[in-house]
Amino acid sequence: MAASTASRLWLPRPTASSPSPRPPPRLARFSPLRAAKLESVLSIGTHVIPHPRKVETGGEDAFFVGDDGGGVFAIADGVSGWAEKNVNPALFSRELMANSSTFLKDEEVSHDPQILLMKAHAATSSTGSATAIIAMLEKTGTLKIASVGDCGLKVIRKGQVMFSTCPQEHYFDCPYQLSSEAIGQTYKDALVCTVHLMEGDIIVSGSDGFFDNIFDQEILAVISESPGIDESAKALAELARKHSVDVRFDSPYSMEARSRGFDVPWWKKLLGAKLTGGKMDDITVIVAQVNIVVIPDDEGAIVEREKGAEKVTVAATATASAEQKG
Amino acid sequence: MAASTASRLWLPRPTASSPSPRPPPRLARFSPLRAAKLESVLSIGTHVIPHPRKVETGGEDAFFVGDDGGGVFAIADGVSGWAEKNVNPALFSRELMANSSTFLKDEEVSHDPQILLMKAHAATSSTGSATAIIAMLEKTGTLKIASVGDCGLKVIRKGQVMFSTCPQEHYFDCPYQLSSEAIGQTYKDALVCTVHLMEGDIIVSGSDGFFDNIFDQEILAVISESPGIDESAKALAELARKHSVDVRFDSPYSMEARSRGFDVPWWKKLLGAKLTGGKMDDITVIVAQVNIVVIPDDEGAIVEREKGAEKVTVAATATASAEQKG
Repeated sequence: MAASTASRLWLPRPTASSPSPRPPPRLARFSPLRAAKLESVLSIGTHVIPHPRKVETGGEDAFFVGDDGGGVFAIADGVSGWAEKNVNPALFSRELMANSSTFLKDEEVSHDPQILLMKAHAATSSTGSATAIIAMLEKTGTLKIASVGDCGLKVIRKGQVMFSTCPQEHYFDCPYQLSSEAIGQTYKDALVCTVHLMEGDIIVSGSDGFFDNIFDQEILAVISESPGIDESAKALAELARKHSVDVRFDSPYSMEARSRGFDVPWWKKLLGAKLTGGKMDDITVIVAQVNIVVIPDDEGAIVEREKGAEKVTVAATATASAEQKG
Repeated sequence: MAASTASRLWLPRPTASSPSPRPPPRLARFSPLRAAKLESVLSIGTHVIPHPRKVETGGEDAFFVGDDGGGVFAIADGVSGWAEKNVNPALFSRELMANSSTFLKDEEVSHDPQILLMKAHAATSSTGSATAIIAMLEKTGTLKIASVGDCGLKVIRKGQVMFSTCPQEHYFDCPYQLSSEAIGQTYKDALVCTVHLMEGDIIVSGSDGFFDNIFDQEILAVISESPGIDESAKALAELARKHSVDVRFDSPYSMEARSRGFDVPWWKKLLGAKLTGGKMDDITVIVAQVNIVVIPDDEGAIVEREKGAEKVTVAATATASAEQKG
């Protein structure tokens, strides 16, 4: 190529741009004489499919969803290498998430996901280690994120990925991890960032078992085709699961492995073979949509719901750890 | 593959991890009886190489670097399609950057890069359009970013990319752009995010002409081999420039083009050919390193400098637009 491309001017094309996958909730008429404010809240859908050989135990991912502020969610992925030391890798990740849920309204935490990681980690007594991500939406629309390791979070706006976290690792397949051992990482090692969200933005978060088995273009396609966040989370998890057991699928994981020098033997390469396939793992997916609600002076939400639209406010805090089995 | 990989425990390997490319500045001894605070500041290096056919005019990228707060920088990339309408695409991007520099200390801006974009755009009277990114470091270590279009910014910590912005576009090669026309995007369309930085973190920012011609692994290698930020910026720009004119280099740009369905004719594909090559464009690179300085109660910095280390504080505000020619 070495093309001398002219960056193109933006002129709207005659075909209308594809509509937003879901119409935003229509705001109720309210008297302009009454004081009111706009607040951002998340609707959250989740889906978990354990590793094919861990269906009975529910796998080693854990997560929780809460309604603090504009909505909160978190994922922890228990490091499976602990099984070689006769430690159940699920204990640490589940306790970490239970503790995160407990400390959510702690005064010291004060809506700071990094401090929440610190307190939840300090209170976790199980042996083991886990990657973890916590995301909290302020009612102003700012999403605050703290992440240690390779759980991920992407924000989709107008059909494109406009924000994405990056994984942290020591080397291939060895992520940063909060640990029961002094040798592990701490909240100080977290990626700490914020992103300002707008009405209609979709957040897709997951464990590495999800992002290692699905491409961004696939995520965008599934989101645009799904009627709601629950259906999106289920369809995304199922597509990642399908890829994870497909030895011919050239997954993000196998592409990354090849780029790090892992591949089939040289004589197979000569025959045109290459390392491909998905990565069998626990798959956790959280899909959240940003909605704007109008809060009148009496503090009651007066959002008028579109028929068939998603729930606007988050249900009561729920703590769960890989309860759904694939 | 479809391997059932066990995520690995982190145990330090006997070989020492590679040292930080540059030692952090050694802090001077100071009396514990004197009040003092720690502040984050950026050292900033820049390098611009215009499009091969735009060397005489300096190209259409523009940037500025300032010392407001812990340090500020910005890049704008004039949309070259305006040349087809007999408009010099450099005028808009240069005026936008000059205005950004002017409004930097404006009370209304108040260290908010999105408001700075708004005011600079409103004050720009040239015909044209540009992508733009502004990054401001708070002295607390929080980097605030506002970006419209496909200029990029990555943060490197301990030899890996731990944060990256995502480009915004209408369709392939047509980025979101601030424009003289009502049809363009505004500050409201910006990606607005923050990331908390630590001492030694390296920021690499650039126009799309940079990121379209270089891979992350190449950026990491150049940073680790360069003695300082000025040398890093120069080496990165030169490597991207080399790739941009190499028709055999399978660049991020040509890979993206193929993934969008652009490729050689089918009969060439049958012969094993594929669309490759770099993208000839203006290349702007900014490399910044986070340093911590100790501020005593008399407000004077008392950092003791390592011999040969980078400058710790940013030089006086400088506005430039593609002055260096490749």
